[in-house]
Amino acid sequence: MALIVQKYGGSSVGDAEKIKNVARRVAQTKDKGNQVVVVVSAMGDTTDELIRLAYQINERPDERELDMLLSTGEIISCTLLAMALEAMGYEAISLSGAQAGIRTDAVYSRARIQRVDPERITRELDKGNIVIVAGFQGITDEMDITTLGRGGSDTTAVALAVSLGAGVCQIYTDVEGVFTADPRIVPEAQKLPEIGYEEMLELATYGAKVMHPRAVELGELFNVPILVASSFNDNPGTLIHGGVPMEVRNKVRGIAHDLDVAKITVVGVPDRPGIAASIFEPLAKANISVDTIVQNASINNITDLTFTVAESQLTKAIEVVKPIAKSIGARDCVSDSKLGKVSIIGTGMQNTPGYAARMFGALSEKGINIQLITTSEIRITCIIDEARVKDAVQALHRAFELER
Amino acid sequence: MALIVQKYGGSSVGDAEKIKNVARRVAQTKDKGNQVVVVVSAMGDTTDELIRLAYQINERPDERELDMLLSTGEIISCTLLAMALEAMGYEAISLSGAQAGIRTDAVYSRARIQRVDPERITRELDKGNIVIVAGFQGITDEMDITTLGRGGSDTTAVALAVSLGAGVCQIYTDVEGVFTADPRIVPEAQKLPEIGYEEMLELATYGAKVMHPRAVELGELFNVPILVASSFNDNPGTLIHGGVPMEVRNKVRGIAHDLDVAKITVVGVPDRPGIAASIFEPLAKANISVDTIVQNASINNITDLTFTVAESQLTKAIEVVKPIAKSIGARDCVSDSKLGKVSIIGTGMQNTPGYAARMFGALSEKGINIQLITTSEIRITCIIDEARVKDAVQALHRAFELER
Repeated sequence: MALIVQKYGGSSVGDAEKIKNVARRVAQTKDKGNQVVVVVSAMGDTTDELIRLAYQINERPDERELDMLLSTGEIISCTLLAMALEAMGYEAISLSGAQAGIRTDAVYSRARIQRVDPERITRELDKGNIVIVAGFQGITDEMDITTLGRGGSDTTAVALAVSLGAGVCQIYTDVEGVFTADPRIVPEAQKLPEIGYEEMLELATYGAKVMHPRAVELGELFNVPILVASSFNDNPGTLIHGGVPMEVRNKVRGIAHDLDVAKITVVGVPDRPGIAASIFEPLAKANISVDTIVQNASINNITDLTFTVAESQLTKAIEVVKPIAKSIGARDCVSDSKLGKVSIIGTGMQNTPGYAARMFGALSEKGINIQLITTSEIRITCIIDEARVKDAVQALHRAFELER
Repeated sequence: MALIVQKYGGSSVGDAEKIKNVARRVAQTKDKGNQVVVVVSAMGDTTDELIRLAYQINERPDERELDMLLSTGEIISCTLLAMALEAMGYEAISLSGAQAGIRTDAVYSRARIQRVDPERITRELDKGNIVIVAGFQGITDEMDITTLGRGGSDTTAVALAVSLGAGVCQIYTDVEGVFTADPRIVPEAQKLPEIGYEEMLELATYGAKVMHPRAVELGELFNVPILVASSFNDNPGTLIHGGVPMEVRNKVRGIAHDLDVAKITVVGVPDRPGIAASIFEPLAKANISVDTIVQNASINNITDLTFTVAESQLTKAIEVVKPIAKSIGARDCVSDSKLGKVSIIGTGMQNTPGYAARMFGALSEKGINIQLITTSEIRITCIIDEARVKDAVQALHRAFELER
């Protein structure tokens, strides 16, 4: 008897009929003799609707209150899924994040799971119950409700798979798996039957929406295989695991892109020690993630400091940076919100020359100007004009022959 | 500095604007130097919508799951009220039933509060917070979420007032107080400035929707004054308390009515000991409240047993009673769902003859047939045709001169 953790996303439980469909899939897994733990997201647009309601009442809702408000979305979907299974004659029980023992820190709106106390889940499984857990949420030691950030239900699922010793964590969603690029942009994009954790992590971090990066990280750390597949059919999905053979790994695996990119440049910064810290520490304190950072060569001890943030955090970032720029004697602080990111990802890259050259060549051929470049061992990312991201993804997919 | 518990019903927090209105009222109470604990119901029709969703998925939803589902309604309204207060510059925090320490038994859908652990509320009050508590819900020792039944937020409010030692529990609602009869039926009905606990208990139990009977009971037990008033204006409401002077009490105080009445008659029952128990024990186990019970004088050791239940519980009650009626050799089991109840209530009654006669006379004058009669020390109730309830209330209001 295997223990399987399944996760169903918001579009898979969007209405009563879809919830019944998910119940049938869960029941099939149970019928095969497995113990099943199911993690669900909130139904369809519930979370967005709750956020809209909150902003009608308070333009800057308190994050503790917002987390408690949003946590209701997953409670609703998990109780309804339990009811749907019961209507089919199965024993099921829904558990909130608190009841399921998902303990987190107190960083509201993007809490991190610190530990899972799985006693209640184990007890319910031992009784023969299918256990439905509200994703995306947890509880602090003070009994306050937290949420894990967008896509946090993936993290809930992998964390449960880890703590329960499940053989596999199945992420069911509205796409069929992990593709070489977004199929809406590149129709000939191929579904990958398998992919390594690190490659998936880079893909997810650099724009592939299919999985939450933190969930991939957790899977890698504890070596739990993660299957990503569609909740609407039985096609094989993509298995994310550590055992992908070298010959499969040794090439570009996929193209990721991200339109949520903005750039801030602090112009005319005196180039002396401590300047970077004086800018980036306050940003970190304001919980703004800074991505690419580039500092120009200094001329007469004056330099420009450029970095990118998510477009959605630009206003907040500028509020933080402007007064600092003034206080350190910088000449100006300018921003551009109309940027995008395109990345090629593959473990072969670090050993094989020519990837960067081929990437830059493909973009140049299309007349796409590269504003910033960053790299990791298995990734090269270019920051470009937002309007050219689609062209760039298509060109790169062809240049690296990913349609084969 | 006084501690005040306020409760706002679902119609008072029906949308963003109404929530802001409630926030202003709460803020006024805080501004007067009070510590304030606010209990809220779910917004408008939220609870009904959640119930509808549940029944779309499962015709007989499990009560534990249903309670967990419904508990989200009050979480939503209490987080939004906290946000509204924060938008006005006040410190506020929302607490779920679990966080507020509302401990109940595990009788889902109509749990009883067993104790309140008010440490968290006290700690938040000490920090200067206005504390917003989700009404209608609690938590068992197993950490399962329960609901207290319809109107349970009143009970939450009074229980908190008791456990926190509040000077008064204020119930704000969409009516202006307790009236001598439902003003929608009797336009000349008078608002009562004060009323005793027992009279209010009978009024609430016998159909006045303004307060939940269990809340009144709790107020009486711990002698907490309860003010019922409108959340939409500042008119004085009705104070429910133990100190109503005798001269005010010594007469009929109000007319209650209830349309949710159905009657079951088990026909031709052998009249032997244990028969009543064999019928009413299974009903109690099925959690069906039986109200009036009448057993006819036995002829040849054969009798008829008639009792009333809520119309909404009739189907379930018949399912329970039919097989029992058969097994004890009864001739038949018939029902009538189109009944209503009309009651006169007043503490003076037991000492003053003539109340019953005047009541029966007033009904008879209108040609209203009385099917069953029950009485308590301070109440006389007649079961009549549902279609005549309105006429009966109007006639009784005039007969006892309650418009004065």
